[in-house]
Amino acid sequence: MNNGRVEVLDGVNGGRLFNSVEAFLFDCDGVIWKGDKLIDGVSETLHFLRSQGKTLVFVTNNSSKSRRQYAAKFLSLGISVSEDEIFSSSFAAAMYLKSIELSTDKKVYVVGGEGIVEELHLAGFTSLGGPEDAKRMIEIKDNPYVEHDKDVAAVVVGFDPYINFYKLQYATLCIRENPGCLFIATNRDAVGNMTDLQEWPGAGCMVAAVCGSTQKEPIVVGKPSTFMMDFLLKKFNIDTSKMCMVGDRLDTDILFGQSAGCKTLLVLSGVTTLSTLKDPANNILPDFYTDKVSDMLQLLAP
Amino acid sequence: MNNGRVEVLDGVNGGRLFNSVEAFLFDCDGVIWKGDKLIDGVSETLHFLRSQGKTLVFVTNNSSKSRRQYAAKFLSLGISVSEDEIFSSSFAAAMYLKSIELSTDKKVYVVGGEGIVEELHLAGFTSLGGPEDAKRMIEIKDNPYVEHDKDVAAVVVGFDPYINFYKLQYATLCIRENPGCLFIATNRDAVGNMTDLQEWPGAGCMVAAVCGSTQKEPIVVGKPSTFMMDFLLKKFNIDTSKMCMVGDRLDTDILFGQSAGCKTLLVLSGVTTLSTLKDPANNILPDFYTDKVSDMLQLLAP
Repeated sequence: MNNGRVEVLDGVNGGRLFNSVEAFLFDCDGVIWKGDKLIDGVSETLHFLRSQGKTLVFVTNNSSKSRRQYAAKFLSLGISVSEDEIFSSSFAAAMYLKSIELSTDKKVYVVGGEGIVEELHLAGFTSLGGPEDAKRMIEIKDNPYVEHDKDVAAVVVGFDPYINFYKLQYATLCIRENPGCLFIATNRDAVGNMTDLQEWPGAGCMVAAVCGSTQKEPIVVGKPSTFMMDFLLKKFNIDTSKMCMVGDRLDTDILFGQSAGCKTLLVLSGVTTLSTLKDPANNILPDFYTDKVSDMLQLLAP
Repeated sequence: MNNGRVEVLDGVNGGRLFNSVEAFLFDCDGVIWKGDKLIDGVSETLHFLRSQGKTLVFVTNNSSKSRRQYAAKFLSLGISVSEDEIFSSSFAAAMYLKSIELSTDKKVYVVGGEGIVEELHLAGFTSLGGPEDAKRMIEIKDNPYVEHDKDVAAVVVGFDPYINFYKLQYATLCIRENPGCLFIATNRDAVGNMTDLQEWPGAGCMVAAVCGSTQKEPIVVGKPSTFMMDFLLKKFNIDTSKMCMVGDRLDTDILFGQSAGCKTLLVLSGVTTLSTLKDPANNILPDFYTDKVSDMLQLLAP
């Protein structure tokens, strides 16, 4: 239960926040864009922050793209962002496997999109599944048998709009039958703004499906896990107390920011409504909240 | 943790069990058949039990068929069973909605197969989804929008080898956006013998996916919920202490039998191995266990 004490961003607290922060960490879906549509005023706000010497970092749980693909998406929306400024859960999955020194002789089965596959390859891993298995249909009446690769040592599950029974069976066989096979979730977001017209089931849906068939819990590498923070700190060398996490989600963005010791700003342009924030049952409170990212520009620009 | 005290079925305890029991309740997958293949000796065993005046009941969590379709499957395998002797989770889902007097003006969205749809129609309900939505592909890049029926008052989720993103979105929209919309699970079996060559993700996989996107828990009508027992008792008027539940699964069959006050017999012809049964972490212990149903015939027939 929260006591409802969370400050709406205004010129005074906004000014203090701005002055105390060296890096702004932005979530993307519901904060920067919805689907393929930029949220109003984002471009000008990012430009302003850069002009004031602030470091910008983009930390997204959406695993459907690689960092390279994210940089291309930013550019297509008129915003120049380098790959090094992007920390996606697809990248985090590959970095996690690297951090535990998974042998590159082993294989990784992917329930998810091209983004995970590309990051795995860039990190030196061999992947199976992913987009390749999108159109595999199983006809139970034909008494099928799925042969799975015994060299799969990790299954990575992320957002997958091409989820199907074949992939679920393949992932389940690897996790249940390959000794020590890891079950990695890019993230567990229940729903997300995959398009700009409505919310869609997020990776939390696909991850839960694999939990349901394997009765195992995954290792989560995206927000709210602070796994990505280690890479971010190495890269930018800024104390987390001088960072502000800006996101639209309490249970991932705000929790991630708080767990890492960052300041936190919730924007109401994505999945969280004001009534969810103020609900007595909600116990994740950001330092500040505002409608959208561009409110910062309005409040802070001279 | 169990103390490992569970008796293997033998001539002595088997004889006592046989004499004290008026009705044998059988699970189907992994007990009577695997996929479309009858397990050895089942036909003769059922014949023997009937000849001895025992009541036979078939209680299955598999929602893919209706009771009519199950009776046809039994017949195709050379066993004559009446619809009235079959209690499937597809039937249970329809009976649950009837028991709470859901208005037949409302609609029911189905993530699952023909069996659920048929039972809903027999009970007077209008269904949407099910096999009809099996081939709907969603292309996120086309910025799609799923319009859902505001009259859907219940979503029933069962085993669905045609699970896809469209169905997950439809079910999620109904549960999240239609006020009071019920979330019914036929069952939560993690895996099952849908074919005779290997195990496949069960309804627990599809149900978990919808839990993941809605962050809600379902009402479960199949085993181990004892919802079906009420119908069974009305039909057969036999005290549960004079019933024996025979199944291959600890967390559904054996738990169901124990919760209802039945005797319980685990067969090792399905998903449970002897080492799972004897694992100190397992705390669901049947009264007896044996390899397969036909052991009863061998031990008990004169």
